Amino acid sequence: MAEQKIDFTRSDDRINTLLEYVQEIVDLSSLAALADWDQQTAMPDGANEVRGHQMATMSGLVHDRQTSPQLGELLKSLEDVVHQPQYSDADRALVRDTRRAYDFAVKLPRELVKEMEIARVDAFNTWVKARANNDFGLFAPKLKKIIEFQREVADRWGYKETRYDALLDAYEPGFTAAKVSALFEPVRDVSKTMLKRIQQSGNKVDMSSVSGQRFDVEKQKELCIKALKAMGYDFNRGELRVSAHPFTTSFGSPFDVRVTTRYQEDYLPMGLMGALHEGGHAVYEQGVAPTLVRTPLASGATMGVHESQSRLWENIIGRSTAFWKGQFGLVRECFPEQFQQVSAETFARALNNVEASLIRVEADEVTYNLHIIIRFEMERAMMNEDVSVESLPSMWNAKYQDYLGITPDSDANGILQDVHWTSGFGYFPSYTFGNLYSAQIYNTLRKAYPDFDERLAGGDVSFVLNWLRENLYAYGTIYQPEELIQRVTGEAPNPQYLVDYLTNKFSQIYNL
Amino acid sequence: MAEQKIDFTRSDDRINTLLEYVQEIVDLSSLAALADWDQQTAMPDGANEVRGHQMATMSGLVHDRQTSPQLGELLKSLEDVVHQPQYSDADRALVRDTRRAYDFAVKLPRELVKEMEIARVDAFNTWVKARANNDFGLFAPKLKKIIEFQREVADRWGYKETRYDALLDAYEPGFTAAKVSALFEPVRDVSKTMLKRIQQSGNKVDMSSVSGQRFDVEKQKELCIKALKAMGYDFNRGELRVSAHPFTTSFGSPFDVRVTTRYQEDYLPMGLMGALHEGGHAVYEQGVAPTLVRTPLASGATMGVHESQSRLWENIIGRSTAFWKGQFGLVRECFPEQFQQVSAETFARALNNVEASLIRVEADEVTYNLHIIIRFEMERAMMNEDVSVESLPSMWNAKYQDYLGITPDSDANGILQDVHWTSGFGYFPSYTFGNLYSAQIYNTLRKAYPDFDERLAGGDVSFVLNWLRENLYAYGTIYQPEELIQRVTGEAPNPQYLVDYLTNKFSQIYNL
Repeated sequence: MAEQKIDFTRSDDRINTLLEYVQEIVDLSSLAALADWDQQTAMPDGANEVRGHQMATMSGLVHDRQTSPQLGELLKSLEDVVHQPQYSDADRALVRDTRRAYDFAVKLPRELVKEMEIARVDAFNTWVKARANNDFGLFAPKLKKIIEFQREVADRWGYKETRYDALLDAYEPGFTAAKVSALFEPVRDVSKTMLKRIQQSGNKVDMSSVSGQRFDVEKQKELCIKALKAMGYDFNRGELRVSAHPFTTSFGSPFDVRVTTRYQEDYLPMGLMGALHEGGHAVYEQGVAPTLVRTPLASGATMGVHESQSRLWENIIGRSTAFWKGQFGLVRECFPEQFQQVSAETFARALNNVEASLIRVEADEVTYNLHIIIRFEMERAMMNEDVSVESLPSMWNAKYQDYLGITPDSDANGILQDVHWTSGFGYFPSYTFGNLYSAQIYNTLRKAYPDFDERLAGGDVSFVLNWLRENLYAYGTIYQPEELIQRVTGEAPNPQYLVDYLTNKFSQIYNL
Repeated sequence: MAEQKIDFTRSDDRINTLLEYVQEIVDLSSLAALADWDQQTAMPDGANEVRGHQMATMSGLVHDRQTSPQLGELLKSLEDVVHQPQYSDADRALVRDTRRAYDFAVKLPRELVKEMEIARVDAFNTWVKARANNDFGLFAPKLKKIIEFQREVADRWGYKETRYDALLDAYEPGFTAAKVSALFEPVRDVSKTMLKRIQQSGNKVDMSSVSGQRFDVEKQKELCIKALKAMGYDFNRGELRVSAHPFTTSFGSPFDVRVTTRYQEDYLPMGLMGALHEGGHAVYEQGVAPTLVRTPLASGATMGVHESQSRLWENIIGRSTAFWKGQFGLVRECFPEQFQQVSAETFARALNNVEASLIRVEADEVTYNLHIIIRFEMERAMMNEDVSVESLPSMWNAKYQDYLGITPDSDANGILQDVHWTSGFGYFPSYTFGNLYSAQIYNTLRKAYPDFDERLAGGDVSFVLNWLRENLYAYGTIYQPEELIQRVTGEAPNPQYLVDYLTNKFSQIYNL
C-alpha cells in the first residue's frame, strides 16, 4: 500500500467542526462501551435494572447527537467539496462514515432506540439465566422482541432485495444475503468435504497434552498474558479479564483496548486460544494511527475485517507449528510438568483436532464456517420468513444434524450458546468473512516474506505485526472492505484462498 | 424519627418532568463515576489522555443539562407551590437540591468546567507520579492551577465572609470557616490533651498481633469480604477492589455501591479497617430508599454525614471490644496461626494504639482530627491568603511539629499523602464533622439499645444497621445536616459527645 499521510485536513474549519461533533459522540460511545465491559466483567447483579436505565439514557443522547440538524447541514456542505484533491482519504472516510451513522440514526426515532436498549439489556440478563438453567422458554419472549425490533430496524433502514440485506449491509457494506450466499458456497463445500475426508481417514489428532489434565487457572492467565505480549499486544494500553463469552472492547483506540477470555481447568486451548483470538482484534485497534483517535475511524474497517485479524492471529498463526516452535518456552515456563515430554510440534498438532462439535467457539477451522452458515441461515429465516420462535430450537438442531451430523444434547449447548442475538442479527457472517479475508491476507504476507515460517519458528513475531500495522491497521476504517482487501492483497475478496488454505493445511495434518 | 412515606408526588406532572430531568443527569453522572472508578482501579496508563477528554466531554454535557433554561423555569414554577402540604419532603428536597446544583452550575461557564476537569485528571496523574517519586516540585504547578481554579469557583459562587466559606458550604450547607473553627475548637483541645495524657502515662498498646507478621494479601481480602458481609454490606449490590487510596463510589444507589481498600502485608489494620470505613459509606448508600433511585436524593445527606457513617462503622463499632467479641471467628478463620493464642480483647486493643503519626489514613481516633485541622487550616490559607505553593511543604511540616510534635520525613509522607486536593478543597473538614456526628448518633443508638454491647458481643450486628437504615439511611439527602441530626438524635450538632467519647474510651484503654 502506498505511503500516505493518515490525518484530517485540520486547516479546514468545516472538517474541524465535524471533528468536534464526532469526538463528542465517540467519547460518549466509549463511556457506554466501558459500562458494557463493566457489566460483563464486574457489575453486581443487583444493578441490572438501574444500569439498563443508564445505558438507555446514554443511547438516547448519542442518538440525539448523531441526528442533529446542524450535523446534517454540515455533512451536506462537506459532501459538495470533499472529493476535491486537497482533502485526504481520512476526510472523505470521516464524512462517509458520519453520513452513514446519521442516515441510520435519523431513520430510528429516539424512543425506539431507548426501548431497544432496554430490551437488549433485559435480553442479555435473561440469556445468562436461561443458558445457566438450559431454559429456552425463558429466553423465547425476549428473542421474539428482538426479532420484532430487528425487522422494524430493517424496514426503516431499507434494503435492496430482502429484509436481512439491511442488517448485513450494516456490518459489511455492499453485501446482500444473495451475495453472501454465493461467497459462502465454496466455503461450505470445502468444509463438508474436508470433514468427511478426515472422518473417513480414521486418523486422529492426539489432544492429551492440552486436554484432560489439570491446568491451574492462575497459571493459564499468566500464559495468556505472555502469549498476548509475544504477539505484540500492549498492556500499557490494555487489560485482560474474564467474562462468560470472550470479547474485545475499546474505550478510545488506539490507547485503551481491552480483552477478556474464559478458562477451563482441564482444557488449555479454551483460555489460550480465546486470548489469541481477542488479542488479534486488539492489536488491530491498538495499531490504528493515533491521528484518528476520538473519531469513528479509529476502529476496524468492518466486523468482517476485524474478524480476519482475530482469525489470522488465533488460527493461521496461533495454531501453526512455526509459531509454537518460536514460543514454546512460554508454555513450558507456565506448565513445566505437563509439557516437559511434549514437543512444540505435538502441542501445535493438538490445537488442530477436527471434529463435528456442538459449540461454535470451540470449533476447529474446518467445521467453524458450518456453525456460522447455520446461524446465517437462521437469521435469514427470522428476518425474511414467518418462523415461530418456539420452532427455532428444533430448526437449529435439524441444521446441526444436516451439516455436522450431530444433534445438540441441550439448548444450552445449542441455540442458547451465543450472546450475539441479544444485540440483534447480522454479525455472525462476519466470522466467515474474517476467515475468507484472513486466508487472502496471509497469502500476501507469505509472498512478502518467503522465509515466513523460519522467522516465526525463530521466535520473531514482530515482522508480522509491523507489516499488518503498516498495510492494514493504521488505516482504521478509511477504506471499505472490498477496496481495502484490493489494496492490501492486490485482488478483490476471493474464497479460493480459504479453500486452498483449509485443503492444504488439513490434508497435511490428517495425512489425507 | 416519625414514620413517613419516602417518595415523590408522582401524580404531579411537574414533579415527573423534574424527575425526568434529574434522572438523565444522574444517569450520566453515574457513568462518569464508573469511568473514574475504572481509572483508579483498572485503567491502563496509556489511556490517561483520551480518558481525560472523555471525562471533560461528559462534564460539559452534565453541565449543559444542569443549566438548561427549561430546568430553571420548571424550578421557579415548583418553588411557588412545593411548600404546600400536598407535596412530600422528598419533593421539597428534590427542588432544593436541583436548585442548588443549578445555581452552582449556572455560575460556572461550560468551558471552565471542561478546563477544570482536564486539570483534575492531569493533577491526579501527576500526583500519582509525584508521590511515588517523593517530588513535590512535580506536583506544585498542578496544585497552583487547582488553587487558581478553586478561587475562581468561590468568587463565582459567592460567599458570606471569606472565599473558603463558599467551598465549605458546598460540602456542608450552612457552615462557614468561622463556624467550623468554633465547632472544631473543643475537638482540637481534647485531642491535644488526650494525646499528651497518653504520652505522659507511658502506657502502651501491644500491636504485635496485627503488625510485623506476614498476613497473606489474598487472605486479607477474604477477611475484608467476610467483615463487610458481617456488617451488612450487600455484595449483590457491590464489589470490593484495590486502589491506591480507598474510596466508595456509587453508580446508582442503592443498587450499585462499590468499595476499595488497599493491603499492607505486614500490617493487618490497613486493609481491614479501610474496608470497614468504606463499608460504612457503602451501607449508608445501599440503605437509601429505592424510591429515590436515579435522583440526587439517593446519596448521603452531606459529606459530613457520610463520614459519620464511615467513622461510626470503622471506629466506634469496628474498633470496639464488643464487636470483635462477636466477630473474632472471622479473623481466626482467615489467620488461624496468627490468632490462635490471641483473644478478641487483645485484638480490639491492638486496633486502638494512639500515636502521633505522619499519615492521616493510619491515624488513630485521638490524633485523627488534628490531621484534619491541619488540612483545614492549609486550605483556608490557600483560599483566603496569598501563600506561595512553594512554601506549602514547610507550612505543612511546621504544623505537624506544632500539633503532633513530629515532622514528616518526606513530602510523600507529608503534603503529598492525600489525593483530595487534585479535586479541590472543602472536603477534609467533612471527616471531623463525621466524627462529631457519629459520636452523637452513637449516643442515641446506645440509649435505644441499653444492651448494645451485649448484643454486639453476641454476634448480632443487624440491629445497628436496621436502626440506622430506618432512622437515617432511608432518607438519603432529604434533610440537611442540622435538621437531620436534630431528627435522629433530638439535638443540634454538639461537639460534647465526641469530647466525652474520646475521653472515656481512651482513659479506659490507656488506664489514665
